[in-house]
Amino acid sequence: MNRKIKMGMVGGGVGAFIGEVHRKAAALDGHIDLVCGAFSSNPERSKQTGKQLNLPDDRVYGSYEEMIEKEKTLPEGERMDFVSIVTPNHVHFPPAKMALENGFHVVCDKPMTVNLEEAKALQKLVDESGLVFGLTHNYTGYPMVKQARDMVSNGDLGEIRKVVVEYPQGWLATKLEDEDNKQASWRTDPAKAGPAGAMGDIGTHAENLAEYITGLEISELCADLSRMVDGRMLDDDGNILLRFGNGAKGVLHASQISVGEENNLKIFVYGEKGGLEWHQEEPNTLLVKHLDGPTEVYRTGVDHGYLSDAALNHTRLPSGHPEGFIEAFANIYRNVAFTISSRLNGEEPSEMHLDFPTVNDGVRGIAFIDSVIKSSESNDKWTPFSS
Amino acid sequence: MNRKIKMGMVGGGVGAFIGEVHRKAAALDGHIDLVCGAFSSNPERSKQTGKQLNLPDDRVYGSYEEMIEKEKTLPEGERMDFVSIVTPNHVHFPPAKMALENGFHVVCDKPMTVNLEEAKALQKLVDESGLVFGLTHNYTGYPMVKQARDMVSNGDLGEIRKVVVEYPQGWLATKLEDEDNKQASWRTDPAKAGPAGAMGDIGTHAENLAEYITGLEISELCADLSRMVDGRMLDDDGNILLRFGNGAKGVLHASQISVGEENNLKIFVYGEKGGLEWHQEEPNTLLVKHLDGPTEVYRTGVDHGYLSDAALNHTRLPSGHPEGFIEAFANIYRNVAFTISSRLNGEEPSEMHLDFPTVNDGVRGIAFIDSVIKSSESNDKWTPFSS
Amino acid sequence: MNRKIKMGMVGGGVGAFIGEVHRKAAALDGHIDLVCGAFSSNPERSKQTGKQLNLPDDRVYGSYEEMIEKEKTLPEGERMDFVSIVTPNHVHFPPAKMALENGFHVVCDKPMTVNLEEAKALQKLVDESGLVFGLTHNYTGYPMVKQARDMVSNGDLGEIRKVVVEYPQGWLATKLEDEDNKQASWRTDPAKAGPAGAMGDIGTHAENLAEYITGLEISELCADLSRMVDGRMLDDDGNILLRFGNGAKGVLHASQISVGEENNLKIFVYGEKGGLEWHQEEPNTLLVKHLDGPTEVYRTGVDHGYLSDAALNHTRLPSGHPEGFIEAFANIYRNVAFTISSRLNGEEPSEMHLDFPTVNDGVRGIAFIDSVIKSSESNDKWTPFSS
Amino acid sequence: MNRKIKMGMVGGGVGAFIGEVHRKAAALDGHIDLVCGAFSSNPERSKQTGKQLNLPDDRVYGSYEEMIEKEKTLPEGERMDFVSIVTPNHVHFPPAKMALENGFHVVCDKPMTVNLEEAKALQKLVDESGLVFGLTHNYTGYPMVKQARDMVSNGDLGEIRKVVVEYPQGWLATKLEDEDNKQASWRTDPAKAGPAGAMGDIGTHAENLAEYITGLEISELCADLSRMVDGRMLDDDGNILLRFGNGAKGVLHASQISVGEENNLKIFVYGEKGGLEWHQEEPNTLLVKHLDGPTEVYRTGVDHGYLSDAALNHTRLPSGHPEGFIEAFANIYRNVAFTISSRLNGEEPSEMHLDFPTVNDGVRGIAFIDSVIKSSESNDKWTPFSS
Repeated sequence: MNRKIKMGMVGGGVGAFIGEVHRKAAALDGHIDLVCGAFSSNPERSKQTGKQLNLPDDRVYGSYEEMIEKEKTLPEGERMDFVSIVTPNHVHFPPAKMALENGFHVVCDKPMTVNLEEAKALQKLVDESGLVFGLTHNYTGYPMVKQARDMVSNGDLGEIRKVVVEYPQGWLATKLEDEDNKQASWRTDPAKAGPAGAMGDIGTHAENLAEYITGLEISELCADLSRMVDGRMLDDDGNILLRFGNGAKGVLHASQISVGEENNLKIFVYGEKGGLEWHQEEPNTLLVKHLDGPTEVYRTGVDHGYLSDAALNHTRLPSGHPEGFIEAFANIYRNVAFTISSRLNGEEPSEMHLDFPTVNDGVRGIAFIDSVIKSSESNDKWTPFSS
Repeated sequence: MNRKIKMGMVGGGVGAFIGEVHRKAAALDGHIDLVCGAFSSNPERSKQTGKQLNLPDDRVYGSYEEMIEKEKTLPEGERMDFVSIVTPNHVHFPPAKMALENGFHVVCDKPMTVNLEEAKALQKLVDESGLVFGLTHNYTGYPMVKQARDMVSNGDLGEIRKVVVEYPQGWLATKLEDEDNKQASWRTDPAKAGPAGAMGDIGTHAENLAEYITGLEISELCADLSRMVDGRMLDDDGNILLRFGNGAKGVLHASQISVGEENNLKIFVYGEKGGLEWHQEEPNTLLVKHLDGPTEVYRTGVDHGYLSDAALNHTRLPSGHPEGFIEAFANIYRNVAFTISSRLNGEEPSEMHLDFPTVNDGVRGIAFIDSVIKSSESNDKWTPFSS
Repeated sequence: MNRKIKMGMVGGGVGAFIGEVHRKAAALDGHIDLVCGAFSSNPERSKQTGKQLNLPDDRVYGSYEEMIEKEKTLPEGERMDFVSIVTPNHVHFPPAKMALENGFHVVCDKPMTVNLEEAKALQKLVDESGLVFGLTHNYTGYPMVKQARDMVSNGDLGEIRKVVVEYPQGWLATKLEDEDNKQASWRTDPAKAGPAGAMGDIGTHAENLAEYITGLEISELCADLSRMVDGRMLDDDGNILLRFGNGAKGVLHASQISVGEENNLKIFVYGEKGGLEWHQEEPNTLLVKHLDGPTEVYRTGVDHGYLSDAALNHTRLPSGHPEGFIEAFANIYRNVAFTISSRLNGEEPSEMHLDFPTVNDGVRGIAFIDSVIKSSESNDKWTPFSS
Repeated sequence: MNRKIKMGMVGGGVGAFIGEVHRKAAALDGHIDLVCGAFSSNPERSKQTGKQLNLPDDRVYGSYEEMIEKEKTLPEGERMDFVSIVTPNHVHFPPAKMALENGFHVVCDKPMTVNLEEAKALQKLVDESGLVFGLTHNYTGYPMVKQARDMVSNGDLGEIRKVVVEYPQGWLATKLEDEDNKQASWRTDPAKAGPAGAMGDIGTHAENLAEYITGLEISELCADLSRMVDGRMLDDDGNILLRFGNGAKGVLHASQISVGEENNLKIFVYGEKGGLEWHQEEPNTLLVKHLDGPTEVYRTGVDHGYLSDAALNHTRLPSGHPEGFIEAFANIYRNVAFTISSRLNGEEPSEMHLDFPTVNDGVRGIAFIDSVIKSSESNDKWTPFSS
């Protein structure tokens, strides 16, 4: 990398959970500088956030429109290279669209948009512009998830037969949206979150993880969404039967009313001759199972020569030095930064650096939400899923 | 108990897995004596087994018919009190029926029969005779399962909203039935196992466990059964969406092709204010989850005053002294023995001793299999389930 | 086995913890019949226990002396074959001595005696009589402990360098002996327990386990015993540095004041090229560690062809069907029973059946206690240990 | 904070493990800017590293002496505020001394020096100058370690009776220092590592952690150090009995030859009425044990209101979003940065920000090494430990 890559941020006013995560993830490896931001739709709050982040006043903007317009006038190398969008779901599309139309690369939180039309519009813009678009399906950034994907694609498990992906959380087991909880209130409001609640917020992560690891596509599904908390406007729990293109079957369930569960994304993959098990809350361990012989405990660590290249390349520390959520998140930022750097230098990005979720994953996620809602409302057993 | 209760066994020739388990479970607490048996349809093999078990020759029979007829002629206190049926599924009904018709109590392995008609016939015989009928849904015998049930019924979790019960095994991931494996061959043969494979062998355990712990009844379901191994005649994997009578939702899946899984029955129950998690492979631990505050690790142990009466009453050892599969199985035998003893003494059995699965659980299990198969073959999303 | 082996019991009046364990362990496999007992020094209580165990009145004795004398007069095949001694420590030696002197085989709880003189006297009697003497260091009965021993002796770990064996319990963290707790009161009373408290009760298990698995002998040690609870008469905690004959080093600590610990015996063994880790509270798992490559999870199960013969031979169930404390205990009884049976038949017992702790382990345990106490009271750093 | 705090680094040429960790830890929260460095004693390599880090050429120095002298001439706000020293042990003292003498704050890796004289000299310089000195005993930066400390100091456990702290690693089980492994070669070389190997590298972490959590001081110890690998010059394994000032006893062992262990620092603390257990490899979980009642699973998470203020203040994410090694490390940098910032503003740092290891911990660590070596070479059982 010839120089650090420059990031402008939309959203992420001080106190916002995910904005802080994006900033730390971008900062971790020293490849990215936050140079400007429109941190809030409230200009005063945006200024205040900029001050706390030690940004110069003239790079803190009152709106994303202002930011994109002003930054565009700065010389390359000084202006931001990409926009990081960390707003609630309904404010993903407008800044992403404007950034792409003005030649800025984009990193966007998920779900990418609130409907499929917007998602496909972004896909078209990316395809036409050739700009980089990273979507923060951050769980695919974990080294052991890379390892799992590589073992499946190497054929270590044989043909895949069954996939169980589960994502229980418990934080919305009560009507938290009535208690002035910012995270809860927008996520349960269709005007801001889009048509899905838990299924959009975390179900899409589960879908993305299952397809990322197995390399398979879900071809049809049968969903049962629920609103378990009285008066809630969006689903807070959902159970889904899955069928994959190759004949594999599976189960996906996601919940935000599973009392006592934190962020317990877990996946089990079984093939003809092997199995895999991974738990996000202990992300540095991957269990590898065999027809004969003991289960093996694969562990993150740059010293573990038995890991795949991709697993090692997304690991920072020796074994036994736990890497966590931010490190996995940072792997997406790092890869995006290297890919942008290659573009700036007129070079082809390496395959390793292109290993991050893109606008196509975003379209697929929105199509998944659509299919799940359609299925849940239908009396037909199976609803096709494609994107 | 005034005297030991006397057991006759049908099936369980030396080498059979589950017969040995029944014998050890019956022997463990010293309340039951094995006094006779028809251990095999092959009289020679039956004799041989009897010899290895140190039974007198005249109490080893060539068929269950002979056993029931001869034992009936012996005086009370000498003759067997009950018959334990540990044959493949298709040989449950005939000896059970004959035993009941001749006044013998019964312990029967599960699934109880190979069709609903037989199951209801047994139910009718039990209802009319007043005889004791125990079904070895042994997983409900674990102390921590009793604890879980008691916490739900006490309202510790509030109204139940979600139940996830999973039962992956991997031992049938290859076509073992072609390799002279006795356990595999009858379980995959519709003539011996009945209409269901994995769903009958282990899915019914999952169904029974979920209903036992929650006290709820599954009211409708949506199933997707598979035969993943080429040429297999019965399901070896199944995924099911559940709806319960109270509005709770859930997932049940059972599999015998999940490579590397041993006998990994596990259940997660979530209510309005609490959650529970239990894994059969670490049966002495029950995780208890809360809206606020840390998860608690409940553990088996007669010294743990915080456990429910039923949990303590089905525990033999102080904490940290692991109790396992046979101990749980033995809890069913112990309760059946005490209940028979009460009957012999003309007393009412205690509620604690009546805590074992009965012919009604057996009918429900067979009805479950019927509903699951019907659902799996249907394009309707929901199939009602009742028994 | 031509017939069941007949057991007489000394101690184990109803309500005693360990007597019940011995009875269940002896009963489990159907090779042993309890035929008589002197269950209490209180004849009334002995009678009552016998009744509850459905023993005939004339086989329930008021003292072990009476039992041994009377049983001796019965014909072989009717009289007891061996005596099981499950009394507090100070009543191990007298009945063991008398039984051996009268030609009865013995199973004895540990620690074997309350001093080395008694221990050596028993050893001499056994050596001279050729009688079978089993000592219930039951933890060596677990299949995964057999597996560990076999892997060490096969050289899978290379030369052993370090052994860490830990045995924390918490049940004596308060002065329970003042609260009418029978288990606590004799174990903390030097007149009944002998010169050591925790170190005798559980420290000897740790010592025995470490030497059993590694095949090494502790050659010198440095101990620091404590009485942490005010007014307690015997040690309730002890920390020990170990040196082994081959140059390996280690740590042994045992405690009954480690609040919240149940029965958490655990051992870690490291050689030049491999490591092992085993926890008694999850006894069916053995972690096998390597210089390179992932840790392997060995698991109990008759279906696990990768296990050693001895591990498989001491396993009753398929993998995933947890075996526990009683099953491990029962392995000692089973092996003793088969060994006695061979003797009765004038045959040489198989090596597999001779795999149980003997009077020599008992002597070593008492010598260990002696050395530990001597070291703890000494200012010398190292105290030699031999037996 | 009015502005970002500026860091200069000594050591940490590209490829060095711990230098990278320090840089990422310093970068994570956006409070610190790396502005200059003397990354290697080889000026060419230093330059190259500076380039990769996107530093301007004139802030990349050929030696720490040059860096300190040149930076001193720059105006406050432009020059570095503190020096981060990440060299092998023998190059900690000289740059630390020079930095302090020239008015720069210091962050230094551990062990602080290679002998007690140097350590005390630094202590004197810090005391006299009032400068900030942070030592990266990073394991105390974990939220659950803060929680443990706070529970002990609140009296939740009652008087502490026993402490077991264990630190097994396996990476030096072979003679890696002969294989061109940079990490191994200086750590096993007395000229660079100082008089201790494993005990200096990781034993001091264990000592620091035990004293940090319990608030107790080790008063005497009995050590047995080993060089298990043939030809190794420094200890690679050590077992130590501990006695604490309040009468508590304990065990500390540290090893780099425990095959298959990664970085398995773990601690168990037992008081009169409670116990704690923490494992560095699963750092977001703290087990809290009680005399009565189930063990509680405390978990990292800003949403967990039951955690102590200090635990919450050192946490960045909601529960279930794993924080790891770098985050804990970053907590030290964050606190040092806030403390320096307070000093720059003439304010008193808050107690929360002063919660990082200091020069006094460094002196204590070196004194610990001295006592351990003395004890290991002595025939006296107990060696006093003070600093």
